[in-house]
Amino acid sequence: MNTISSDPIAPLAVGVDFGGTFVKIGVCRGAELLETMAPIPTADHPGPEALIHAMAECIADLRVRHPNIKAVGVGVPGLVDYDCGFVHVLTNVPGWKQIPLREILSSQTGLPVTVENDANAMTYAEWRYGAGRGLKNVIGLTLGTGVGGGMVLDGKMYRGSQFSAGEIGQMSIHYDGVSGHYGNLGALEKYIGNQQIAEHAQRRYAQARRHKEIEDCAPKDIAAAAQAGDDVARKIWGEVADWLGTALASIAWLLNPDAFVIGGGVAQAGALLFEPLEQRVKSMLSEVVSGSLKILPAKFNNEAGIIGNAALAGDSQAA
Amino acid sequence: MNTISSDPIAPLAVGVDFGGTFVKIGVCRGAELLETMAPIPTADHPGPEALIHAMAECIADLRVRHPNIKAVGVGVPGLVDYDCGFVHVLTNVPGWKQIPLREILSSQTGLPVTVENDANAMTYAEWRYGAGRGLKNVIGLTLGTGVGGGMVLDGKMYRGSQFSAGEIGQMSIHYDGVSGHYGNLGALEKYIGNQQIAEHAQRRYAQARRHKEIEDCAPKDIAAAAQAGDDVARKIWGEVADWLGTALASIAWLLNPDAFVIGGGVAQAGALLFEPLEQRVKSMLSEVVSGSLKILPAKFNNEAGIIGNAALAGDSQAA
Repeated sequence: MNTISSDPIAPLAVGVDFGGTFVKIGVCRGAELLETMAPIPTADHPGPEALIHAMAECIADLRVRHPNIKAVGVGVPGLVDYDCGFVHVLTNVPGWKQIPLREILSSQTGLPVTVENDANAMTYAEWRYGAGRGLKNVIGLTLGTGVGGGMVLDGKMYRGSQFSAGEIGQMSIHYDGVSGHYGNLGALEKYIGNQQIAEHAQRRYAQARRHKEIEDCAPKDIAAAAQAGDDVARKIWGEVADWLGTALASIAWLLNPDAFVIGGGVAQAGALLFEPLEQRVKSMLSEVVSGSLKILPAKFNNEAGIIGNAALAGDSQAA
Repeated sequence: MNTISSDPIAPLAVGVDFGGTFVKIGVCRGAELLETMAPIPTADHPGPEALIHAMAECIADLRVRHPNIKAVGVGVPGLVDYDCGFVHVLTNVPGWKQIPLREILSSQTGLPVTVENDANAMTYAEWRYGAGRGLKNVIGLTLGTGVGGGMVLDGKMYRGSQFSAGEIGQMSIHYDGVSGHYGNLGALEKYIGNQQIAEHAQRRYAQARRHKEIEDCAPKDIAAAAQAGDDVARKIWGEVADWLGTALASIAWLLNPDAFVIGGGVAQAGALLFEPLEQRVKSMLSEVVSGSLKILPAKFNNEAGIIGNAALAGDSQAA
């Protein structure tokens, strides 16, 4: 519960963080999360119709205690048309293809609904109320299984021509590198995704004649080992920082932003990642571009989705 | 002289294309270049004061024949503060450091003045009246000694937090590649700048046991050789396309634009570059991002600076 960023004039809005495993729903006033419902297991409601109905029931329940709720924002793990509130496809949620989510949820709740990509919503939360608050140009990243991204440019969410902008994990860091999901050589997430970090760590340990099971090479294990003084583990974080830093430097040359705000599981490594990352990025930039550039850990983690989507929905009503 | 894009309601505006060798000045109505003055050799007027005075005299001369000129736009090869019309530094023009260009030129001409980076002005020309006309998100590139870039995002020139955005030539295509001017490993322009193409071509010919002087390896020579059926030369364009295409694909994943518009000397290779480039870029993208993405040759070449700066100045008066 965040009180520092409370925004007494923000309207009450519901944020829905629709993930592959759980749908998390809460009600916010600005960054203040007033109440969170028990997460809905996504797989318990096969098919869009049943799941949307479960969301609507949950929202109705919240409105009993918060009758002034003005809007609902839903963030989804996939491609949406923000203007129409339409879900094109969620690759990790069966049956979600070409779903007019805004239309259905709005008719079931009687409330205005926004539908946004999850990484965009996270970025919006950080820009509106979090680590990037008050800045003009903010790039948000989530580091986990893959690498997601979002952008606020000139003080506005930037979505691109087909609402597909921000795919930082697909950017190339090597013109002849590892092939990504789309045949894109050198795709960043093929270097610093959770699983890729684990596999790389296992190889590095093997080179140091130390056998490690892959289950013991997750980013959190490598972070714990590095913190305990393990040199191999520390070097692995240096390499992750070099790969990620190369992409961030390219983005900085292109967009000259005020800040990168980085969240997600891999970012939990903290200074082990952020220190070499800052060094790498700044070593690749001019003084003008790097001078006031900030590389910040995200303020919101698990709540970023709820807060960001509630903020998008609330602000869309105020606008 | 362009009549297709004539814009009868655009105000008359002067465009100044301030390059390291010449200052070119013309008067435009929209994309229609009504009159161009004889280029002023930049080195003939050492120091900002003398050169600005020469610009002002040239503009005064134009106003005799075009009394309705409403504004002046100047494009410069370096870092500017667009909001203040202030030139921070032009690395290739001696003495140009911290010059309040708008203030001086405006007081000498009595006209409103805009000051823009040259690659931004080229992009604006292409977006407003050229190959990217009417599109929402356009990325402009100039390929020459270096690689410059500019961006129109959501229908507006995007300049970044310190007006330094668009440095596409500094983006990395290899996390452990050739070092750029700022220590930035894998800097694109260290692969596809004029000189770098020539050096690479000389090496490729040597590998094929053919000796070529470096003077015979300029991009235009390699283009002529490829057109004449030289396999080595054709392969070189394929490599240039792979390097440039990697950067464009990364930008497309990040920004999901409608179009890249590419000008400058190296782009004169035409289909030799554009065909493998389009193939490379599209091979690295999802259908959604690549589906409607266009890779276009610039419409304006030598006149892009005059037209773009005149358009920026004219539009700033209309706004």
